[in-house]
Amino acid sequence: MSKEITSREQDYSQWYIDLVLKAGLADYSAVKGCMVIKPYGFALWENMRDVLDKKFKDTGHQNAYFPLFIPKSFLSKEAAHIEGFAKECAVVTHYRLKNDPNGGGVIVDPEAKLEEELIVRPTSETIIWHTYKSWIKSYRDLPLLINQWANVVRWEMRTRLFLRTTEFLWQEGHTAHATEQEAIFETEQMLNVYADFAENFMAMPVIKGVKTANERFAGAVETYCIEALMQDGKALQAGTSHFLGQNFAKAFEVTFLNKENKQESVWATSWGVSTRLIGALIMAHSDDDGLVLPPKLAPIQVVIVPIFKTAEQLNAIFEKIKPLVDELKAKNIRVKFDDGDHKSPGWKFAEYEMKGVPVRIAIGARDLENGTAEVARRDTKEKMSLQMLGLAEKLEHLLSQIQENIFNKALQFRDENIVHVDSYDEFKKALNAKGGFIAAHWDGTSETEEKIKQETKATIRCIPLNNKQEEGKCIYSGKPSVQRVLFAVAY
Amino acid sequence: MSKEITSREQDYSQWYIDLVLKAGLADYSAVKGCMVIKPYGFALWENMRDVLDKKFKDTGHQNAYFPLFIPKSFLSKEAAHIEGFAKECAVVTHYRLKNDPNGGGVIVDPEAKLEEELIVRPTSETIIWHTYKSWIKSYRDLPLLINQWANVVRWEMRTRLFLRTTEFLWQEGHTAHATEQEAIFETEQMLNVYADFAENFMAMPVIKGVKTANERFAGAVETYCIEALMQDGKALQAGTSHFLGQNFAKAFEVTFLNKENKQESVWATSWGVSTRLIGALIMAHSDDDGLVLPPKLAPIQVVIVPIFKTAEQLNAIFEKIKPLVDELKAKNIRVKFDDGDHKSPGWKFAEYEMKGVPVRIAIGARDLENGTAEVARRDTKEKMSLQMLGLAEKLEHLLSQIQENIFNKALQFRDENIVHVDSYDEFKKALNAKGGFIAAHWDGTSETEEKIKQETKATIRCIPLNNKQEEGKCIYSGKPSVQRVLFAVAY
Repeated sequence: MSKEITSREQDYSQWYIDLVLKAGLADYSAVKGCMVIKPYGFALWENMRDVLDKKFKDTGHQNAYFPLFIPKSFLSKEAAHIEGFAKECAVVTHYRLKNDPNGGGVIVDPEAKLEEELIVRPTSETIIWHTYKSWIKSYRDLPLLINQWANVVRWEMRTRLFLRTTEFLWQEGHTAHATEQEAIFETEQMLNVYADFAENFMAMPVIKGVKTANERFAGAVETYCIEALMQDGKALQAGTSHFLGQNFAKAFEVTFLNKENKQESVWATSWGVSTRLIGALIMAHSDDDGLVLPPKLAPIQVVIVPIFKTAEQLNAIFEKIKPLVDELKAKNIRVKFDDGDHKSPGWKFAEYEMKGVPVRIAIGARDLENGTAEVARRDTKEKMSLQMLGLAEKLEHLLSQIQENIFNKALQFRDENIVHVDSYDEFKKALNAKGGFIAAHWDGTSETEEKIKQETKATIRCIPLNNKQEEGKCIYSGKPSVQRVLFAVAY
Repeated sequence: MSKEITSREQDYSQWYIDLVLKAGLADYSAVKGCMVIKPYGFALWENMRDVLDKKFKDTGHQNAYFPLFIPKSFLSKEAAHIEGFAKECAVVTHYRLKNDPNGGGVIVDPEAKLEEELIVRPTSETIIWHTYKSWIKSYRDLPLLINQWANVVRWEMRTRLFLRTTEFLWQEGHTAHATEQEAIFETEQMLNVYADFAENFMAMPVIKGVKTANERFAGAVETYCIEALMQDGKALQAGTSHFLGQNFAKAFEVTFLNKENKQESVWATSWGVSTRLIGALIMAHSDDDGLVLPPKLAPIQVVIVPIFKTAEQLNAIFEKIKPLVDELKAKNIRVKFDDGDHKSPGWKFAEYEMKGVPVRIAIGARDLENGTAEVARRDTKEKMSLQMLGLAEKLEHLLSQIQENIFNKALQFRDENIVHVDSYDEFKKALNAKGGFIAAHWDGTSETEEKIKQETKATIRCIPLNNKQEEGKCIYSGKPSVQRVLFAVAY
């Protein structure tokens, strides 16, 4: 083993941090709660971003860019919104430094105090809806379908690489519509885009649902979400899509002349996913030897490790392998030929296992003679000796198989970890046993939800879409309930 | 005309602002000095970013992401660096808001004051070199070739859309090398990447050179730059590449074990271009009717405007034009078919002229009969009636021609506006007449440069690379000089 990783069983949290650091995804920074995304982690994010960006454009959205700073007064205009974000705002109060006249080095210049403080955006609804006011006059200006890729800051007291950081990268869609129906359609459409991305690219099964009032986005009428299950039995909210009603339009006085020539408030949505998804991706699939990445997003899909002692041997391998590399590149497969001579093949094997490269090819002197190569899958650890002839096609197929296998494995795990319980005792037992999603009847009140959270740390992750309606009794209050909701302890 | 634009002759500054606003590139924001980049402007930036990003990757660089915030003490570690940036820093001092107990709404919570203030990055050398300290141990870790796409903030008192804004988007490369020679090679390589991008994609000729000490980046040993000339005779610095020597390595104690097993300070470079390039692009080519965009970067390269009265006519045109649209898309040409029925063809013509779409195609009933289309070039305003048969190939060729023509026009203008002068009187006359680059002898002192700047606003834009050496006398001091340098009034 090149680098030691704590096993999941030993300490799941440490296992996660070991992976992030040792696979070279991210690093701690000098600024509390902020991280450095290292090249390998950023390449993963670029792949995710590119897929999502295309999906957004294919559904008619355009990218734009709004200011990093939000005047404090804007944030206060929507009551629930400020309530939700006030406690985690980074505040800019000054715009200049100067030399300390008392020789204490560089200090903040007290004369350069801003009249109104600026908030580093925790999310951009307020600055964007302020802007939309001057862009939207008539129903002809609608819908307005805009997305922004940006950094945002939410001051977090307890942070964890990718999962919860003070600064993170994300995209935030902000759309404006002439009717409630269109806005709801948009909210659901983007939820489906996220679910499709999670399942078909991240190979991570998700449950689509709506949040309860307690868990709703600050300022939303309805928050839709996709919820995934991690290997430790905790849930992770992987994306949200909010139907904002007319709340922000009213707060920022954004009206339009409708087809009947009447002024009306605009209907809104917002939706986002962030670098948190990288945390989800890691925890959904990886094992005690390192990352397991789905081929569709892996920065390196196939790595080729030559086994050689002399420069001539390396040359001979290179000659043999070159056409394969070219063929793979022509198929848009991301391939790396690692001919470095500082590290042994064994070290490289462990390193690429750590980095979660889906397919590793080893080729040495005997392979050259036999016209073969050793092909190893990262997901199953299976090794096969395959003929070089026609290998590119086989690898292409293998990558699809791996993508599918990773998804199926995660799906099976997820499905095995949805437990139905009918009493609070069972509920607590299930939580303590292995966690997972717990489907239980709930009386629909915030009070009950809050009490269960206080007593068990479990929250209602969502009310699944198209949820089966069945009569029952709330596990906590015993009051009547019409459906089961999904509880879990969450990241 | 759909929208009025101030002519260049009437008021060049207003012409520029009219273009930015009316072509839909950007908008003012509620935050002083910050702008909103609108979808059309952002699409332009995305095209620029994608070309540059590929060039960076092709030269071996990887993207990463470092924190938005920089501890105040970091900024102070390199003396020249803090001197250069202290006066324009946005400072975060608090991390929480709260309800005013006196009922004054939401206020900054005085109890949430940071122990050390955080600076919103004006550039990232300091936070990055602090990080590199833990990444670089041996010569085997070098070179480290990293780029970051990010937003940065420099508090500007006088701002102008794209050209000078408090927040702007940019890329910043930060590389670490084992030898001085390698670092200088890198600095020059990236300057060439920028020059190639400016000339072959932006169609904007540039002069490569080095800055004088006065104009050097705060903390650099040598600043290389590309300088372009705008239509009003002012120069614009379009990109810079800095050789940082060992300054940042020493300030942040970044050393490595070299091949001789000795500890040595690491050599550094940094280089960047920003959304300012959009301002340069606008001013380099546009005219009194709107933007003129180089085809390689234009968000829409070909727009097709059908001339119709009835739905049947539109249908007939659509049937005819569909194969052309498909062919163009197959050639990766960005084409838009504007079948909107709210606006007249004349309005659309003016709108796409304003937006600088390189080629406009109009097609009406008579064209259908004749199997032709009217093709108009944005750059020359030339109109041609062309056969539909084989039109896609002709358009592809036409786009290349337009790209070339725009460059040649700008090159001719630039070359006509380089004036050689041999006295301070001639210098001032030339400046007042039409500006441009003024090639004059200079005694090499900062004092002379400063005085000329105070008296005329002209600065030394650069000492061109491979500059012709010739004996002469400084136009200001009369002292001996070995070469002419390029002066100009600059943006």
